[in-house]
Amino acid sequence: MVTPMDFDLKVYLEEKRVQVDAALDEYFPKGDGLTTALIKAMRYSLFAGGKRLRPILCIAGAEAVGGVGQRVLPVACAVELIHTYSLIHDDLPVMDDDDLRRGKPTNHKVFGEAIALLAGDGLLTEAFSLMTSPKATENIEPPGLLEVIQIIAVAAGCEGMVGGQVVDILWEGKNAEFETVKFLHTHKTGAMIRASVMSGAIAAGARESVVQHFSSYGHKIGLAFQISDDILDVEGDSEIMGKMAGADEGKGKTTYPSVLGMDESKKIQEALVRDAVQDLEVFGDAAEPLRKIAYYIIERKK
Amino acid sequence: MVTPMDFDLKVYLEEKRVQVDAALDEYFPKGDGLTTALIKAMRYSLFAGGKRLRPILCIAGAEAVGGVGQRVLPVACAVELIHTYSLIHDDLPVMDDDDLRRGKPTNHKVFGEAIALLAGDGLLTEAFSLMTSPKATENIEPPGLLEVIQIIAVAAGCEGMVGGQVVDILWEGKNAEFETVKFLHTHKTGAMIRASVMSGAIAAGARESVVQHFSSYGHKIGLAFQISDDILDVEGDSEIMGKMAGADEGKGKTTYPSVLGMDESKKIQEALVRDAVQDLEVFGDAAEPLRKIAYYIIERKK
Repeated sequence: MVTPMDFDLKVYLEEKRVQVDAALDEYFPKGDGLTTALIKAMRYSLFAGGKRLRPILCIAGAEAVGGVGQRVLPVACAVELIHTYSLIHDDLPVMDDDDLRRGKPTNHKVFGEAIALLAGDGLLTEAFSLMTSPKATENIEPPGLLEVIQIIAVAAGCEGMVGGQVVDILWEGKNAEFETVKFLHTHKTGAMIRASVMSGAIAAGARESVVQHFSSYGHKIGLAFQISDDILDVEGDSEIMGKMAGADEGKGKTTYPSVLGMDESKKIQEALVRDAVQDLEVFGDAAEPLRKIAYYIIERKK
Repeated sequence: MVTPMDFDLKVYLEEKRVQVDAALDEYFPKGDGLTTALIKAMRYSLFAGGKRLRPILCIAGAEAVGGVGQRVLPVACAVELIHTYSLIHDDLPVMDDDDLRRGKPTNHKVFGEAIALLAGDGLLTEAFSLMTSPKATENIEPPGLLEVIQIIAVAAGCEGMVGGQVVDILWEGKNAEFETVKFLHTHKTGAMIRASVMSGAIAAGARESVVQHFSSYGHKIGLAFQISDDILDVEGDSEIMGKMAGADEGKGKTTYPSVLGMDESKKIQEALVRDAVQDLEVFGDAAEPLRKIAYYIIERKK
């Protein structure tokens, strides 16, 4: 067990990122001759240099309740597959029409729109295939695994991320009220971040009363993460981020700074992280990674 | 138990269709104020008058092994959600660019491309949400339910339907070999039809040795179904089908008639159905609906 004194978040994130990358590479289908183009497109976005924040939250959630990170890797990887699909579809011309993602041309710029659409569909489906494959069922008890899939599917679907995307698209260029931007952020980004940490804890066998703490923590850091994205879009460095700053304003996106102003947005974000850290008190040292990740979310540069 | 003598397929299909429609309506989220547009778009395509063949195969698969159709309804409905998502994405301008589906304007023609894309994403995700909701977990044993989700996810993903879609897009306007058109048909359409009947049997508790029969039956009728779609596109009545006949040829689609000719395609189709019916011998009268559905697949007019 690491103690807060000698815990180094940078080392932790790098170690877990390498573990997630290796697992994704191992799990991911290679495809036969006829579908090579599809698999190539899926892999292109999957290995485009993501931070793997969501899978790391899943692993850290498992470890916080005394679980072994390695055993929840299929769930952690599934969450990243869903995240990657959402980026590919979000970048499509009919959606945000972005040319650059993580410093590289977006999926449809390289493979065309039809393949990009299908690569997204394939990644989303593969997430559920992975979570019900022997890699998952051999390590996680069936009732807990079904609960994990339920939480992730609800967070990704029309009552979660997809619901948030719709509000994002429909409110573009319009004046949104605070409740709308809060809905957008908790659904579009927050729901899957919350589901990531919860699913790790549940997969590791956490009881329902314990899972509530992760739900509350995840909800707060999920919202803080999207506010931080909004702030980076105004104050961030395009080169470090690998995408153009100022894009939100250019597109008339509904953001926390645009609705509440920059100072108020930062205050809300800081309060969310402070409260999130308090949600973890009962877990002692085992939750140190999750605490440090909460602070990292508002200090990050990309 | 119905006996082959008094079994009326038309009555059976209608009875089950009504049951599936009612369940879909009951299960399907209503959405709150902000996501109303999304839910409306999802419901538009979901209730556009589909035959519900896949969910009926799922129910008939359960009944063939002595199960109760009602108990597998969440799985049956999930299969229809996935089918509906695939039609919405398939009709998009970057894919087949179709204006008409089941006699009505396609989803993107009514709601725009962004909402249509998200409606498809939402339907696919909702399928997995439904299969892990209490509606499913209260009626189906956890290990069997995980197996069902695995079979459906693999059939829908890059090694199944999405893989078939990619081949469909990439081979458009090109001369395909027989092996390619067979791959296309067994993946694009066949995989989900096979998964539908298998998942019903597994959800009802069928043993592995028994499931093999449904796998073989499903594979054959799935392929026969797509060949029949190809034939209808040449010989069918646009008004009855609710879509334009001749569309495949216009788009340079790879079909059985275009590769093997009409006579040979019909012969293959008939042989497939004959063999599929033989796969069901061990189940006696309980498999009568599945036998009749096999014949219906090549006799249908839409």
